[in-house]
Amino acid sequence: MRAVEYKGHRTFDVVDREVIAPRPGEVQVSVAYVGLCGTDLHVYLGDMDQRVGSDAVIGHEMSGRVAAVGEGVDAFRTGQKVTVLPTRYCGTCRACLQGHSNVCYNMDFIGLDSPGALQELWNVPADLVVPLDEAVALRDAALIEPLTVAVHDVRRGRVAPGDVVLVIGGGPIGILISLVAQAAGGDVLLSEPEAARRRAASDLGIATIDPITEDLAAIIDAKVPGGHGADVVFEVSGSAAGSETAVANTSARGRLVQVAIHAQKREVDLHRFFWRELEMYGARLYHKNDMVGAAELIRDEKIPADRLITSVAPMEDTTAAFEELHQGNAMKILIEVAGDRD
Amino acid sequence: MRAVEYKGHRTFDVVDREVIAPRPGEVQVSVAYVGLCGTDLHVYLGDMDQRVGSDAVIGHEMSGRVAAVGEGVDAFRTGQKVTVLPTRYCGTCRACLQGHSNVCYNMDFIGLDSPGALQELWNVPADLVVPLDEAVALRDAALIEPLTVAVHDVRRGRVAPGDVVLVIGGGPIGILISLVAQAAGGDVLLSEPEAARRRAASDLGIATIDPITEDLAAIIDAKVPGGHGADVVFEVSGSAAGSETAVANTSARGRLVQVAIHAQKREVDLHRFFWRELEMYGARLYHKNDMVGAAELIRDEKIPADRLITSVAPMEDTTAAFEELHQGNAMKILIEVAGDRD
Repeated sequence: MRAVEYKGHRTFDVVDREVIAPRPGEVQVSVAYVGLCGTDLHVYLGDMDQRVGSDAVIGHEMSGRVAAVGEGVDAFRTGQKVTVLPTRYCGTCRACLQGHSNVCYNMDFIGLDSPGALQELWNVPADLVVPLDEAVALRDAALIEPLTVAVHDVRRGRVAPGDVVLVIGGGPIGILISLVAQAAGGDVLLSEPEAARRRAASDLGIATIDPITEDLAAIIDAKVPGGHGADVVFEVSGSAAGSETAVANTSARGRLVQVAIHAQKREVDLHRFFWRELEMYGARLYHKNDMVGAAELIRDEKIPADRLITSVAPMEDTTAAFEELHQGNAMKILIEVAGDRD
Repeated sequence: MRAVEYKGHRTFDVVDREVIAPRPGEVQVSVAYVGLCGTDLHVYLGDMDQRVGSDAVIGHEMSGRVAAVGEGVDAFRTGQKVTVLPTRYCGTCRACLQGHSNVCYNMDFIGLDSPGALQELWNVPADLVVPLDEAVALRDAALIEPLTVAVHDVRRGRVAPGDVVLVIGGGPIGILISLVAQAAGGDVLLSEPEAARRRAASDLGIATIDPITEDLAAIIDAKVPGGHGADVVFEVSGSAAGSETAVANTSARGRLVQVAIHAQKREVDLHRFFWRELEMYGARLYHKNDMVGAAELIRDEKIPADRLITSVAPMEDTTAAFEELHQGNAMKILIEVAGDRD
């Protein structure tokens, strides 16, 4: 079978690999599409060489069909459309014992710590496989994993109908959070300084604001006179300015969800946390149920998945696809592995 | 009647004031004892001159008996022991409408924004009066208000039996939080660099640690091997080092309660919030139900109120009492107004 291997030096090559039969408890998935995300881009750029090693097969956003099942697996039938939760947690650490397997202290993230989806036949533990409705297009289904992140984030922020929601940062995750929060009934405003990103969000029906030239606080206050802030704020920018804006625009008892990765410490107005009883929630990865929720949003066409896909490239063009992603103008690039042959 | 007036320049004088009858909906309380707190100390030091104005009567930690009731008040009888919730919220702002009256945007804090308890006969809205069990000593009951803060904080952190709890900062509020968290079943460790404060906490049955000379992380890890942090952390120090320690020692999905007032912004490791899905909760003031809970803790002798009282001074010695408080060695100083004459 064919697989895409990371060769270092910003290079991915298609290689031929021996097919391995699924072991007991595993499902062998015929991979249809693989989405490339920001973490994968870090692999491409060489930032994660030590973690992924040489000749690694990465990829964790995917869709496919069941090709075969290992011994003892009876919940799946061959040909069934599926996606995969790429988190193998230990089940024995304190975080897992408390039910927080998404922050397992010994997490094996599939596609980074173990082989990922950029291969024709991919063996994964059956309990991480999520069945999909046959009506869902496999192209769209490759967006379920990033959407799962957004579903988890929005649940973490407990967005309720009528809540004023501020999303800071209009990259792919910020846009997905905006869409999921809107689907949850939130009155969403996306703050993003780059005009191209604002246009893309606007085209998807998301209200946007330029935090550099517009008065964010006044616009939020106009939505809820005297509210002095949004009910829920998502910090997805990873910037010092975004962090500052987030704390400054959260209402009394409002919920600030930390989605972005901040590479350095940030100055935080803790007095405001005290004075307004603000709440801040870190949000990382997801639970299986978040993926079930994301699959339902795609199935029910609550999220315009097809409009989020910038381009689809064949396996041979993986390196070029990463370079395109690196340029920063793409929303979501998919690699077609088997595609949807049925 | 006699009242203590703030005269500016670190001076409080006893003056004679006309008795005002309670208006409709008010209760007139014969004040027994008034506790002095850190906020009152800021008044003494002149930091709040603009807010309190001249000839102000301050004081919001108190106990007393009902002296008279205004028209329409039938829930109280003369002579009944009571304490008072010193927060008059507007009831109409968004925070109030959402049930978060403790962070009301238009809060009138009685004893700062309007006349307080350092007077013999004090008129307060009946709905802020909390009845006390006759068996509770009025001296002890003067501690109910600061204990209410601690009850609110512990509830904000959702301390459950068996939770490993880290309290950072061993001042009066840190000690009360430690005691309330212990009463809630928490396995409490109090971190405090000053030896005298550690001794005082130790004498009250609280396990303490010196964060300068001892290895806090190792001690917490020994309580919960592989837990990598406390389930609940209370930041009560207001210091940069305390804030750093708090974030660094909160377990995955742990709850960090911001109790202290941080006068300046602090550098916060937001990456850790993301990675471990930490939660941070600002905590300010309280709800009436927190005061009911605090009164029950005193009534049931779950908190050794008498051992927390450093000294009791007559009204004439208020200035000297503040100077003693300013020296920093007192846990709780009470001013005796009527005392407990029955």
